[in-house]
Amino acid sequence: MLLSRPSVQGNVRFSKRTADTMESYIMKLISVANEPGMISFATGLPDKRLFDTSGIAAAADEVLHSTRVNDALQYGVTEGLLSLRRKIADRCRKELGFDTGTDNVFIMNGSQECFDLLGKLFLDRKDKMIVENPGYLGALQSFSVYGPKFSGVDLNDNGPDMTQMEKALRQDPKLYYAIPNYQNPSGMCYSDDARKQIAGMMSDTDCMMIEDDAYGELGFRGRTKRTIRSMNENVIMTGSFSKIISPGMRIGWMIVPDELVPFVKRSLEASCLHANTFSQAVMDRFLENNDLSKYLIPIRREYQRKCRLMLDLLKDSIPQGRWNEPEGGMFIWFRTPDGTDAMRLYEAALKEKVVIMPGRPFHVRGGGNTIRLNYATASDEEMKEGMGRLARAFSSVF
Amino acid sequence: MLLSRPSVQGNVRFSKRTADTMESYIMKLISVANEPGMISFATGLPDKRLFDTSGIAAAADEVLHSTRVNDALQYGVTEGLLSLRRKIADRCRKELGFDTGTDNVFIMNGSQECFDLLGKLFLDRKDKMIVENPGYLGALQSFSVYGPKFSGVDLNDNGPDMTQMEKALRQDPKLYYAIPNYQNPSGMCYSDDARKQIAGMMSDTDCMMIEDDAYGELGFRGRTKRTIRSMNENVIMTGSFSKIISPGMRIGWMIVPDELVPFVKRSLEASCLHANTFSQAVMDRFLENNDLSKYLIPIRREYQRKCRLMLDLLKDSIPQGRWNEPEGGMFIWFRTPDGTDAMRLYEAALKEKVVIMPGRPFHVRGGGNTIRLNYATASDEEMKEGMGRLARAFSSVF
Repeated sequence: MLLSRPSVQGNVRFSKRTADTMESYIMKLISVANEPGMISFATGLPDKRLFDTSGIAAAADEVLHSTRVNDALQYGVTEGLLSLRRKIADRCRKELGFDTGTDNVFIMNGSQECFDLLGKLFLDRKDKMIVENPGYLGALQSFSVYGPKFSGVDLNDNGPDMTQMEKALRQDPKLYYAIPNYQNPSGMCYSDDARKQIAGMMSDTDCMMIEDDAYGELGFRGRTKRTIRSMNENVIMTGSFSKIISPGMRIGWMIVPDELVPFVKRSLEASCLHANTFSQAVMDRFLENNDLSKYLIPIRREYQRKCRLMLDLLKDSIPQGRWNEPEGGMFIWFRTPDGTDAMRLYEAALKEKVVIMPGRPFHVRGGGNTIRLNYATASDEEMKEGMGRLARAFSSVF
Repeated sequence: MLLSRPSVQGNVRFSKRTADTMESYIMKLISVANEPGMISFATGLPDKRLFDTSGIAAAADEVLHSTRVNDALQYGVTEGLLSLRRKIADRCRKELGFDTGTDNVFIMNGSQECFDLLGKLFLDRKDKMIVENPGYLGALQSFSVYGPKFSGVDLNDNGPDMTQMEKALRQDPKLYYAIPNYQNPSGMCYSDDARKQIAGMMSDTDCMMIEDDAYGELGFRGRTKRTIRSMNENVIMTGSFSKIISPGMRIGWMIVPDELVPFVKRSLEASCLHANTFSQAVMDRFLENNDLSKYLIPIRREYQRKCRLMLDLLKDSIPQGRWNEPEGGMFIWFRTPDGTDAMRLYEAALKEKVVIMPGRPFHVRGGGNTIRLNYATASDEEMKEGMGRLARAFSSVF
């Protein structure tokens, strides 16, 4: 079931790219995870208990009772609400280490939409593109629509394998997509040295880097490392309010170099006109009412606590497994014994009514013995119960 | 300015489709229209005075204070909120003349996103595609990204030129895109006969029709004509709440034949995961609280009144012009004298501080003496003042 791909039926004549498009399983797993009695460590859902519903309700109330409410419900401009773009530019200056003009900031329907747009803008079929191995499946799926040849660069504990990186860059790739902070799926964080090296490498090529900062605000000790964009202004940066405020509002953003601005604008207009004006207005108001840095403190603390809880449970219940100890984000990267197939654990776990995300689909090659575990979604009780179930599943297959 | 296209700069290596992508001018005109003192008949903006802001505020309040608020702010399923999809399917059964399963209904980020998705799903470069001449520019722009060869079929008073249509169908097109109800830009409505003929023609080919019903709910006397989808279940139908409730919420929808369902789902997931969950929940609640058919009565009446007002003003102030008398929608199609260039009127009007939309960009061929006038956006006072300005501009050039 998990590895199925819809096949062409009847006399419907699809484009070639339709056959190229990968499955991502993400949404499929969300459906499975919603089945009654199921406990999920599988998806990328943030902890919904941390949503500031009263803060969002207050912001929405202000927007809907302001004199400019009709503008929040009307069509807007392609690039997005100016005051929200200003806040993002301010945050970049204060926290992400670089200056950007508001003209370079685009509000997107979640950062997922950035990947579709950038694939569309840059990739012809068979163009080369560097991705992390493992890499974020949702982005790989978006890019796959445009038929690139992925060069996978293995991730070590400190960042990408630099020998592989150099080799991949010699093959004239158009794009390099990476999540340097608390990567999805591995939880890995690039070291400062790796960041510097990458920033330098990118200066020497025509390869455009996409630095995805979706988890950058979720460092347990805040932001401890420089963004690559702060060392190389030719990097595209994508970010999102999904992991820290609300994914349902679908507000992501993208910061692009000057020469891309008119092309991004035209492409965004062609694909959806612009992001949700109403959500933008509510998000803007929410950020007006809240100091984001202060707002993030309890969220980071809670994710750190939940991460610790899952690590402790793993140690107690599956001591034969191996895993990393993340410094932020939402994921623990778990390995079944060398040479084993983690899909067997996935299937045994399903029978025990716990869903985990097999690591193999994130990989261009290898990864058969890996699993991604999300510690953000479940409650403490669910996590304890779910880890017990996972341990039983583990014992049954290994 | 109006006809410019961004050119490739520096060493940025875009995809071929980036050069293929048309400008649409829509968003550019929204920017121009927002300049101080400017009166606009140019855009496709609905009348923001008709937004039921208190009804939307009440719906938002209910969502944000319900026990399920966290789900409205969390990630959702690709295809969209089930209860909203059910309401759309119900509306189709009661008002649009056909039954559809909820599985065939997808919630989209405005119906604009449907065109990008369908272009992506169906079109390889140089594939043939039938479009109306004139046709809706925003959709043409979306499709243009995927490099099709457009066959333009002229619109007569009763629908497409059937001789041209038959000829175009013999060239094995993959898609046919049309707005049978109160078309954008021409305001034209297909006759019942034309609808039947088209439905039949589509049964005999592998060409997939996209029936865009964005204005279908805005008939001055309600729905008076059958949808083509009701006569041919292999037609894709797109629709939107943008023109009748709020465009800023970006909630459109698409109904597709069974065999497309898994492909649309995968493509939507790859491009943006899903539409805004929060807006979907608010829209769903709004439709729960309001009988859409009753809600539409004063809106249709008001658009009819404004249409009449603009027609009367045209008759009084520019009697030398020619125009149609629409039965719904938001647009009047205006012609300058045969052989003249309506761009001259556009430019003269800009100097008088009134923005109109030249008809030529909507055309695959011809249309140089056409103008689209939107009677929905402006207030009565703006319309009176703007028509005076337009008359002065008209006198100055013709």
